[in-house]
Amino acid sequence: MKSRRGFASDNNAGVHPDVLKALGAANPGHAVGYGDDDYTRDALDLFRKHFGPRARVYPVFTGTAANVLCLKALTRSYHAVVCAESSHLQVDECGAPESWTGCKLLPIPTSDGKLTPTSVEAACHGIGDQHHVQAKIISIAQSTEVGTVYRPEEVKALARWAHARGMLLHMDGARISNAAASLGLTLRQVSGDLGVDALSFGGTKNGLMGADAVVLFNERAALDFRFLRKQGMQLASKMRYLSVQLGTLLAKDLWLRNARRANRMARLLEAEIRKIPQVRVVYKVEANAVFATLPPKAIRELRKKYFFYTWDEAKNVVRWMCSWDTTGEDVRNFARAVARALQGR
Amino acid sequence: MKSRRGFASDNNAGVHPDVLKALGAANPGHAVGYGDDDYTRDALDLFRKHFGPRARVYPVFTGTAANVLCLKALTRSYHAVVCAESSHLQVDECGAPESWTGCKLLPIPTSDGKLTPTSVEAACHGIGDQHHVQAKIISIAQSTEVGTVYRPEEVKALARWAHARGMLLHMDGARISNAAASLGLTLRQVSGDLGVDALSFGGTKNGLMGADAVVLFNERAALDFRFLRKQGMQLASKMRYLSVQLGTLLAKDLWLRNARRANRMARLLEAEIRKIPQVRVVYKVEANAVFATLPPKAIRELRKKYFFYTWDEAKNVVRWMCSWDTTGEDVRNFARAVARALQGR
Amino acid sequence: MKSRRGFASDNNAGVHPDVLKALGAANPGHAVGYGDDDYTRDALDLFRKHFGPRARVYPVFTGTAANVLCLKALTRSYHAVVCAESSHLQVDECGAPESWTGCKLLPIPTSDGKLTPTSVEAACHGIGDQHHVQAKIISIAQSTEVGTVYRPEEVKALARWAHARGMLLHMDGARISNAAASLGLTLRQVSGDLGVDALSFGGTKNGLMGADAVVLFNERAALDFRFLRKQGMQLASKMRYLSVQLGTLLAKDLWLRNARRANRMARLLEAEIRKIPQVRVVYKVEANAVFATLPPKAIRELRKKYFFYTWDEAKNVVRWMCSWDTTGEDVRNFARAVARALQGR
Amino acid sequence: MKSRRGFASDNNAGVHPDVLKALGAANPGHAVGYGDDDYTRDALDLFRKHFGPRARVYPVFTGTAANVLCLKALTRSYHAVVCAESSHLQVDECGAPESWTGCKLLPIPTSDGKLTPTSVEAACHGIGDQHHVQAKIISIAQSTEVGTVYRPEEVKALARWAHARGMLLHMDGARISNAAASLGLTLRQVSGDLGVDALSFGGTKNGLMGADAVVLFNERAALDFRFLRKQGMQLASKMRYLSVQLGTLLAKDLWLRNARRANRMARLLEAEIRKIPQVRVVYKVEANAVFATLPPKAIRELRKKYFFYTWDEAKNVVRWMCSWDTTGEDVRNFARAVARALQGR
Repeated sequence: MKSRRGFASDNNAGVHPDVLKALGAANPGHAVGYGDDDYTRDALDLFRKHFGPRARVYPVFTGTAANVLCLKALTRSYHAVVCAESSHLQVDECGAPESWTGCKLLPIPTSDGKLTPTSVEAACHGIGDQHHVQAKIISIAQSTEVGTVYRPEEVKALARWAHARGMLLHMDGARISNAAASLGLTLRQVSGDLGVDALSFGGTKNGLMGADAVVLFNERAALDFRFLRKQGMQLASKMRYLSVQLGTLLAKDLWLRNARRANRMARLLEAEIRKIPQVRVVYKVEANAVFATLPPKAIRELRKKYFFYTWDEAKNVVRWMCSWDTTGEDVRNFARAVARALQGR
Repeated sequence: MKSRRGFASDNNAGVHPDVLKALGAANPGHAVGYGDDDYTRDALDLFRKHFGPRARVYPVFTGTAANVLCLKALTRSYHAVVCAESSHLQVDECGAPESWTGCKLLPIPTSDGKLTPTSVEAACHGIGDQHHVQAKIISIAQSTEVGTVYRPEEVKALARWAHARGMLLHMDGARISNAAASLGLTLRQVSGDLGVDALSFGGTKNGLMGADAVVLFNERAALDFRFLRKQGMQLASKMRYLSVQLGTLLAKDLWLRNARRANRMARLLEAEIRKIPQVRVVYKVEANAVFATLPPKAIRELRKKYFFYTWDEAKNVVRWMCSWDTTGEDVRNFARAVARALQGR
Repeated sequence: MKSRRGFASDNNAGVHPDVLKALGAANPGHAVGYGDDDYTRDALDLFRKHFGPRARVYPVFTGTAANVLCLKALTRSYHAVVCAESSHLQVDECGAPESWTGCKLLPIPTSDGKLTPTSVEAACHGIGDQHHVQAKIISIAQSTEVGTVYRPEEVKALARWAHARGMLLHMDGARISNAAASLGLTLRQVSGDLGVDALSFGGTKNGLMGADAVVLFNERAALDFRFLRKQGMQLASKMRYLSVQLGTLLAKDLWLRNARRANRMARLLEAEIRKIPQVRVVYKVEANAVFATLPPKAIRELRKKYFFYTWDEAKNVVRWMCSWDTTGEDVRNFARAVARALQGR
Repeated sequence: MKSRRGFASDNNAGVHPDVLKALGAANPGHAVGYGDDDYTRDALDLFRKHFGPRARVYPVFTGTAANVLCLKALTRSYHAVVCAESSHLQVDECGAPESWTGCKLLPIPTSDGKLTPTSVEAACHGIGDQHHVQAKIISIAQSTEVGTVYRPEEVKALARWAHARGMLLHMDGARISNAAASLGLTLRQVSGDLGVDALSFGGTKNGLMGADAVVLFNERAALDFRFLRKQGMQLASKMRYLSVQLGTLLAKDLWLRNARRANRMARLLEAEIRKIPQVRVVYKVEANAVFATLPPKAIRELRKKYFFYTWDEAKNVVRWMCSWDTTGEDVRNFARAVARALQGR
């Protein structure tokens, strides 16, 4: 089953061949550890090319780490972080944000994974009251956990709303490439240019082996960030291998090609799926995810052939993700399997 | 300068070709994330083969993480950790142990990097007194930060002393392979069999790209460890790539070949260096490190050609590390450069 | 306005004269610090008389501290605490539970401030899944923040449900005396006997100057609790003054007399208020709190004379608390003021 | 033994009668909780009278809390705190500083309990190096734990040294009144005026029941301090009783009278003790403490009559503290007992 490509998660895909090749090319010889090497210098240059000369960039190992360290840099322990109820931060980090920052999360129900100034406002009370945590961060995911994509003006509105209140905007960009590809914008146009203060840049889900990065647009947060990264156990000794991955992703639009492919496959999957009665697509397909409801019996049947996650047990919503390596054939085979599962075969 | 091999640190070396090859071989197809894949299953089996069937093993990204998470698993916030004044834990983790566990470190001066029951005892006071932190962990490094190696009976004596007092023994095994190779013992014979409760197993410094592991011999500590790893931001989504590295290291005695080579080169370096008057080797060369004093002017001169770290500014002690890829020629070239630096050339 | 008695909070009342007198009586001479004195010994004896010989008791300064330290004793950082959305823990501790324990709170909406096994069950998911916090504690307030009182069988059901799953039950007893008085039961009958593992015993709101206590029925939690109290900055150097307060409360049923009085006054206030059209009592009055809705204009009018808190801005719900020192005259005067405020006078 | 006055600690003494009286006088009627009452307003005014109009003051319950919260306000988790090896912070807080702030302490050996720029400098290395904690705070005790008193110019030199490096100066003033009395200076002259950024003001050891305060001269630290106090479980609900204690201490030079008395008694004790051969006073008696060595057998003998602490087991150093209520007769009786103990009677 190892070589089978499925739709469980974009982190089930392997590493893009260009990245593997680059890792091999960077291997001979010695390189100073902890980031003081040429590969890292080159990668950081590329980041600044994409995100602007004032972006401060810190490679880390995981998206959880990128998220938590962004929050740590921007908060004090009595602050609170407003996020979507469905956010990775709230649901899938095993309490790392709370335990590492001390902050309370203020999760907000959403219909499409997106926060708005109105919904955020409702969650921010007790400002200035010493008994209450002080809402300081708005954290959004782009693309969202349900595969939707914030429009630039939606992000800008949140940034403006936050900054007007002394608050800051964090973007969980585990799939920022998919969002930028979807919007036809550059990485910078969907983050720093819209007022994002801190970005978790995702590489792992977009064809890397295991490399993400913290990108800080807020200068004050960046001041001592290197100490937080080390203390957060995210400083790679053989940093060149993180940097080479990230550099390869950014050097020749690999980030974009990979993301476009995944998005296109998701749209294809949506199209194929929509042909099947009894399956309902539940969120707009704007990035590389398709969420659908189908009868529990069909879910069980389909799972005999393909592993994937149930998103909402109560409502029989499942999640199917496309990856940089998903092929049209993969999609059509899968759609056929869905159809068959519904026919009980 | 990229391809030059130096003696600054064993983490400056690249990845062993077998490991790179294995990473490539594991790349095609999809694999379930977060450790539920065949590569991880195989790697954990190999660990149990080396460390015994009751060892619980958790791959992580860095040695800092392995150390901190071991301590986190074994302590409560009012505990204290006894360690050598020169230990990585005390000196080089940017306070990660304290900030993650809440515990105080109790650093002990040593002459050779090693703790003994006698020296530990002197640091443990106020037991049972509510005003004092409660010494709970003895943490030793094997091989030590100064390149010495604990004899099995020394480790056993510490374990016995600790266990008799309800305390536990942690081993920072960033270089456990070098220690085992030096002693001619198996990995298990230098850790679990001696009473070690938790081991930070080092792979990165011994030819991997970036993969270490927590090995727990203490069942209770292992109970919920997976949550601590995730919360500690050390759960790899594409886990197969960590597991393949570790598996390759353990599968065909690569760990041993790499460590033996590094140790042998250190002994060669020591021998070459001892021929040079004005250089004094300051610690026993028992693993892959050579510590030496030489005049400050010679240090400056030598550094024009080779980057390396000063260990003790006040005493002009420098550290030279050998790696899995160090060659006899590297060593002889370097020794010649040392000699020349002393002659002011 | 200092000497005016209002209904803003039971912590606005002063100290019962018997307590002041006892503090004076305990003042002459020296007493060993940190709890090793006769007053503390006596107070702990009294606690065991009330809560059973196996109760472990630790005086602390505040209810927040009692709550947080109970949780700290019972949890690891990856655990979660299920509590009512309206709980003090969730709303009024400025994030102290999260920042001090690292745990996530799982707040549950309730109609009457009470949790049930069914509502708790809905909040506990992802058990065993390393990505999720692990629900470990159910925390209830007795009496609740909205002035209702759990029936003994309701608490017992929660304890049984929790223990069957390896979870534990914490009771925030800031007003446990009011609950016991309301139910006509002893302190022990409403806590330890029902399966409560850890109790925050409230003294301050029931006539003390500033003294609460952690009461642990769970032996394992008590093992090292003294270190957590000290580290939690709650170990009084002049402990005798905390102990004398608590001892006086428990020695001659002062706890019961004070609580009964406050409860009786709340029932009187309810009766008086119910006579006034336009005011609606919104929760059952079972302890010393009355929650009511009245028109915003009347709230503003009434507040010119009496300070009190709005509980729910959106629904115009206000909270009125009775204290150990509330008199029938206080109540009638206040009810008249309410009536007048509604007439716009 | 309750009414016997001894020399074990200045926290064994009771509460000054004026303070008890003031507590009684403040008791009638209701007062808004959490500091929004007239007593607190008055007390804060008095603090500003003593410490200058820009001092920000926050009453707390314990000296441990004052210390830890000062550090929390001034640090981030990767910072380090330089303190004397004998400091309360290092020895007697059960790791509260580390567990609350995440910071590492850098303890320095001293001959007289005092830090100097030279000794501090030796402990501050690795500044700017991401592997190392960053020394940020110098924390001194005034008077020191061994009863010595910093001269104003010594404090000023430390403040200047710290500020020149972007570091800050914390003063543990558990006994600041004894220091000021000893120097014949005002409270402000020995703290804020010398460049102290944050002061733990001690009231409990100087005749109060249990009330200390954080005094912040550094505006930025004060910005959000109220949230840290609440999160630190140090916000009193019935705040008036803390404020009345502190107000009484500061209103009519009670702080000075109490401290002078204690200091005078310590000098008297020193004089009496010096008459006895075999007893050696080991530190300068500049505040209210006398440290002496005497033969172990005599220590045991004396302890049959008087409880007191051994400071240094190895060197047979004991600590004797005088309090605001120590009398000349107490001292003479004690000196006689010491003499007798040495004669084996």
